[in-house]
Amino acid sequence: MTTAVCPGSYDPITYGHLDVIRRAAAIYDELIVAVVNASVRKTKPLFDIDERLRFIEEAVEAEGLHNVRAEPFDVLIVEFAREKGATAIIKGLRAISDFEYELEMASLNRLQAPDVESVYLMASPEYSFLRSSGVKDLATFGGDISKLVPPQVALRLQEELTRQRTTR
Amino acid sequence: MTTAVCPGSYDPITYGHLDVIRRAAAIYDELIVAVVNASVRKTKPLFDIDERLRFIEEAVEAEGLHNVRAEPFDVLIVEFAREKGATAIIKGLRAISDFEYELEMASLNRLQAPDVESVYLMASPEYSFLRSSGVKDLATFGGDISKLVPPQVALRLQEELTRQRTTR
Amino acid sequence: MTTAVCPGSYDPITYGHLDVIRRAAAIYDELIVAVVNASVRKTKPLFDIDERLRFIEEAVEAEGLHNVRAEPFDVLIVEFAREKGATAIIKGLRAISDFEYELEMASLNRLQAPDVESVYLMASPEYSFLRSSGVKDLATFGGDISKLVPPQVALRLQEELTRQRTTR
Amino acid sequence: MTTAVCPGSYDPITYGHLDVIRRAAAIYDELIVAVVNASVRKTKPLFDIDERLRFIEEAVEAEGLHNVRAEPFDVLIVEFAREKGATAIIKGLRAISDFEYELEMASLNRLQAPDVESVYLMASPEYSFLRSSGVKDLATFGGDISKLVPPQVALRLQEELTRQRTTR
Amino acid sequence: MTTAVCPGSYDPITYGHLDVIRRAAAIYDELIVAVVNASVRKTKPLFDIDERLRFIEEAVEAEGLHNVRAEPFDVLIVEFAREKGATAIIKGLRAISDFEYELEMASLNRLQAPDVESVYLMASPEYSFLRSSGVKDLATFGGDISKLVPPQVALRLQEELTRQRTTR
Amino acid sequence: MTTAVCPGSYDPITYGHLDVIRRAAAIYDELIVAVVNASVRKTKPLFDIDERLRFIEEAVEAEGLHNVRAEPFDVLIVEFAREKGATAIIKGLRAISDFEYELEMASLNRLQAPDVESVYLMASPEYSFLRSSGVKDLATFGGDISKLVPPQVALRLQEELTRQRTTR
Repeated sequence: MTTAVCPGSYDPITYGHLDVIRRAAAIYDELIVAVVNASVRKTKPLFDIDERLRFIEEAVEAEGLHNVRAEPFDVLIVEFAREKGATAIIKGLRAISDFEYELEMASLNRLQAPDVESVYLMASPEYSFLRSSGVKDLATFGGDISKLVPPQVALRLQEELTRQRTTR
Repeated sequence: MTTAVCPGSYDPITYGHLDVIRRAAAIYDELIVAVVNASVRKTKPLFDIDERLRFIEEAVEAEGLHNVRAEPFDVLIVEFAREKGATAIIKGLRAISDFEYELEMASLNRLQAPDVESVYLMASPEYSFLRSSGVKDLATFGGDISKLVPPQVALRLQEELTRQRTTR
Repeated sequence: MTTAVCPGSYDPITYGHLDVIRRAAAIYDELIVAVVNASVRKTKPLFDIDERLRFIEEAVEAEGLHNVRAEPFDVLIVEFAREKGATAIIKGLRAISDFEYELEMASLNRLQAPDVESVYLMASPEYSFLRSSGVKDLATFGGDISKLVPPQVALRLQEELTRQRTTR
Repeated sequence: MTTAVCPGSYDPITYGHLDVIRRAAAIYDELIVAVVNASVRKTKPLFDIDERLRFIEEAVEAEGLHNVRAEPFDVLIVEFAREKGATAIIKGLRAISDFEYELEMASLNRLQAPDVESVYLMASPEYSFLRSSGVKDLATFGGDISKLVPPQVALRLQEELTRQRTTR
Repeated sequence: MTTAVCPGSYDPITYGHLDVIRRAAAIYDELIVAVVNASVRKTKPLFDIDERLRFIEEAVEAEGLHNVRAEPFDVLIVEFAREKGATAIIKGLRAISDFEYELEMASLNRLQAPDVESVYLMASPEYSFLRSSGVKDLATFGGDISKLVPPQVALRLQEELTRQRTTR
Repeated sequence: MTTAVCPGSYDPITYGHLDVIRRAAAIYDELIVAVVNASVRKTKPLFDIDERLRFIEEAVEAEGLHNVRAEPFDVLIVEFAREKGATAIIKGLRAISDFEYELEMASLNRLQAPDVESVYLMASPEYSFLRSSGVKDLATFGGDISKLVPPQVALRLQEELTRQRTTR
């Protein structure tokens, strides 16, 4: 059985992430969406780890992807991959800036674990401009994000941003 | 009458901004330089909104651009454009990193408002390396910025940086 | 009345071209699609100038764009723009390689004619991967191009490639 | 059983190609190195299809890669993939220019065959600068190519270039 | 005697830096590795200025580079170059993002000091993916950094990150 | 005495080339402008080797650059550099596409001759858009090239293009 991990912050999951997850799930027998647990990271995510995991699980269930599950990780991604018996790290590429960053990461990861391959899919054109941070910026100013993230995520995003604004 | 908005932080306006404004003003009947009002943004600008607006107004007046005015905005730029009856968002492109960012923004903005077109001008070669942040870094270390920003901006930049240094 | 020219080889016109033409036609009172007449160029186009012009005219008519017309040109594009009373050259940007090429052309053209502005629109994501040469390669190998070019163009492309193959 | 195709001109195979082939062969049960048969292409390759195939087969045998074979193709790569029961097209990415080209190809190929996924590996740093055309240029001027291509390829490259020079 | 300065944060020095320093030292009679003194900068470095200087000095001594020394600077780099009688600022280029940033800096620096030339070396492929920040991220998660930085730096990096984690 | 070579086609020399030559001549004791002799190259240059060399010599003399001379070469550039006792190959970088190409060449050249360093200068902004091929295209259509190439080159370019047109 082939297993791959698909790492990211997913703060929150977008339709762009979901497109890559769906296509990766068609290539591997088992796909683990690996969500960065922020405790050792510098910037605090908007949604806590449990909610980010739940958003992903709801979205993959709605897509009918039965070989996908979400898990948190707080070690090196290659180490997490090994623990899970995964032979690949799979990611989407949207733009030049992604490409350069991923080229660096792939080289660093290969030094750590030559047995775990980094594998890339090209973002579908219709999601090539989509990033979690762009969605959050849009939502902050009351933009319509219904075509960018799943319905339940859109709802919680509005709630959370409203809550943050009023408690500031 | 055609109207366009030219959004940015303008913290502070540079000769590069002014070059794009001058050329955009020749294309549209009316040009509104739209200045991000920082209250909902994360990073505090060096100059407050009133001073940033005044720098722009002084600079466009010195250039004799009678169809240009500066206004603050704190909503989505497409919403601001609509309020003002503008059919276009106009921006300068300097480098690859600009291009990728603007490609994302143009796509997100089109989703929000297909009736507002994003229009781009190429930076003139002599200003292609010029950014507000570069000017501020240069001024912080006592560099000569007289060829990069209007005289009154250069003066205030030195004052402000000196004030910040002494009050730290 | 504002007039712009939208230059290219259009060998043949694609839905990506048409998207830029439609959006440019919404900005300017009059849009002239300027088609390079190949007599002084090095590489022979697949379709002759008359057919390339006719494809464009049929496509813009089918779109109901009444302020657009196609014309051949064999002088510098800035000179052609001036002859037609156009104040802008308008083009689509799809990728980094486009951006670098257009940055060069914009600078060269400004030296020739500072009064003619080069104006850019970002390609819509769904057409960002579309080039005439890609369509021709696809058609050469019998690929389905019905979502990439107008029906009459697709038909003629197949005919022309078949004819070339049999006469070789 | 999972099968992938790894298309290219391979004129001739380099150590950079071989690195991608070796890593792809570790991911898929069966890997078909698909070599463009030039009869319908414009530029004549330096080595004919039989020799290019033989170079690949010798190189993969020397590497002990038992699940890899080389085959010619002269149809669309997605059609070739389907004929062979392959679910993926796998390629290496070396540079930005590769990335932009492959992004275009991936989108065009997905339109033709959504069931065949395009999958990318990052070139290893030590081969990131290596292209068949660069090797041929180097060999033309008598440069040392022993670290860039397998020994038998290096030998034949020198022979072939000498033969071409003397018959000109 | 020709002198060059090689500026950076060096927080901490990596084998990639050392590769550029070694090659630059072969071109100039005297090379001063100029380390940014962070007092007027915004982000606090991981290692203080004395330790960053010592790491460099130990590394260049281990390499047997007798014409290289490390010095702190807290003025404009062109001013520092002039004080030291240097005619060049020398830097390594690894990626597109480096290139764009350095193109900007070179233009700004030329305006300040046309007599100080900015000179660039291409990063060796084997270090093209290496940045101090990547090394620190890797070390934070317990990755093996022994091939990326000199031994004493690797040791101190682990110590420092452990200390920070326990004092948080 | 330090010597560098500055290779290219120089078909013909532009003010952009001259800017890099002038700045390189300030860094090295002796600079050899190395002109590709086209006999073993594929595309025929517009000007023959003697005229290209003469254009360069006239231009550097007009600039008063006494440590610069032009020479043809038809071997590997690293071999030519060694023959001349040069320790560096020096080139200008204008754009991303230059950068990627030069990164490849630098790596290939280092494999051939680790003792010859490749050194880069950033093109001045005012010449960043300037290429010989762009100048020739412009001249073909009667554009004004007086700000792009030295006067005698502009004159000969017009003559040569007229001659070619009439003899076709």
